[in-house]
Amino acid sequence: MRNTIFKHKSVRRYKSTPLPDDILKDILEAATRASTVGNMQLYSLVVTCSQQMREKLAPCHFNQPMVTQAPCLVTVCADVHRFSMWCRLRGAEPAYDNFAWFVNAATDALLAAQNLALEAEYRGLGICFLGTTIYTAAEISKILSLPDGVIPVTTVVIGYPDESPALTDRLPTEAVVHYETYSGYTAAEIDELWAEREESEQMKRIVADNGEDNLAKVFTEHRYRREDNLAISRSYFELLKRKGFFNN
Amino acid sequence: MRNTIFKHKSVRRYKSTPLPDDILKDILEAATRASTVGNMQLYSLVVTCSQQMREKLAPCHFNQPMVTQAPCLVTVCADVHRFSMWCRLRGAEPAYDNFAWFVNAATDALLAAQNLALEAEYRGLGICFLGTTIYTAAEISKILSLPDGVIPVTTVVIGYPDESPALTDRLPTEAVVHYETYSGYTAAEIDELWAEREESEQMKRIVADNGEDNLAKVFTEHRYRREDNLAISRSYFELLKRKGFFNN
Repeated sequence: MRNTIFKHKSVRRYKSTPLPDDILKDILEAATRASTVGNMQLYSLVVTCSQQMREKLAPCHFNQPMVTQAPCLVTVCADVHRFSMWCRLRGAEPAYDNFAWFVNAATDALLAAQNLALEAEYRGLGICFLGTTIYTAAEISKILSLPDGVIPVTTVVIGYPDESPALTDRLPTEAVVHYETYSGYTAAEIDELWAEREESEQMKRIVADNGEDNLAKVFTEHRYRREDNLAISRSYFELLKRKGFFNN
Repeated sequence: MRNTIFKHKSVRRYKSTPLPDDILKDILEAATRASTVGNMQLYSLVVTCSQQMREKLAPCHFNQPMVTQAPCLVTVCADVHRFSMWCRLRGAEPAYDNFAWFVNAATDALLAAQNLALEAEYRGLGICFLGTTIYTAAEISKILSLPDGVIPVTTVVIGYPDESPALTDRLPTEAVVHYETYSGYTAAEIDELWAEREESEQMKRIVADNGEDNLAKVFTEHRYRREDNLAISRSYFELLKRKGFFNN
């Protein structure tokens, strides 16, 4: 466990070797062992292994090569559809078509996704979470035929690694931890927490390659820009409403 | 790993034994190893170990005894504040005050939370996720002094177990898995997936204790009722806007 968690790195190059059925089954079962609100299991795991379907999904993930190279994608969805259907079949009137239950279902889905990822890594596989999922969630929903009450929250690429990346640096643990109450940050503390990263040769190269004078501007001017962030916000919120998660 | 994931059960009775510092440190570090969008680490972990603070938080969690019995609560927050502050200090203009970045930050926070929970269990501790967090997130935010750009998404209770509950049943794994596309459910399939649960003596007792004629109605009429769901949806969405996650 400890080793699996502490050795995690996102893998972006994969062999085409298929996943053995027993391993896939084990990974999916691991997902179901995560905590879930009221034991309702408000998530679905859409497993895409066919080449044809991965090619269809590839543009939704900006054609990152791993999407078609790796043998398997799991689109992790918040899902109140199945539970609501069970309720209706029992003459009970479900009321999970609202924002609180999007948050609950997304929570269930993401805890399950992390179990899935860790179990895959424990079994010698590599994984990568695809943040592009919420950028193009409407198109993914169409391709995967997701009904009302189901919305993609993330995607996990799974396969045998064809690279061995170094462990990614993180901010010092104290950067994200607060004791008793949120302690806030002084400018000097922010400088200190980011110092190692900002001084690394790798980051200096990234800054130079982007023609900027510091790393923060690489994020705000290149990677995650206001106009894109607002477009994604609007389209994902629109989908949330269309899928029936905002009948407040 | 496998064992830790597959042996997980939520613990609701705790000894008051404090957490050793080295174990707490290890658990918090494990959280930081989870995948995070753009390596931005958009979460904060507010660790509450003082008796006084746990008593203040208890009403936010409906005074469940474990909140004051267990030595430690971790309120897991989506956090774009720290990253945005870093950007501003570098003359970069952050644009993470919108819905897409609530979803990204909540994703980061929940993947980190599951690492934290699993590492705690691996170290012999018990854990319980508190879904009450989003019911009372505004009050929790006040108690923990959370600034703009920070919102609680879940809470993890951590401590040495004072009970040994049985493994919780889950739906058969195939209930939550779909191959290639979302396959939908027939009424007969729903019956079959829920059969074991609905026929269990424990569930029959719960149905009888609630004066209902089936388990689904226990959920819709008692545990998670429409008026409560809508009130929570409104208050959490309101907080999201107030904390600056909806400047679309």
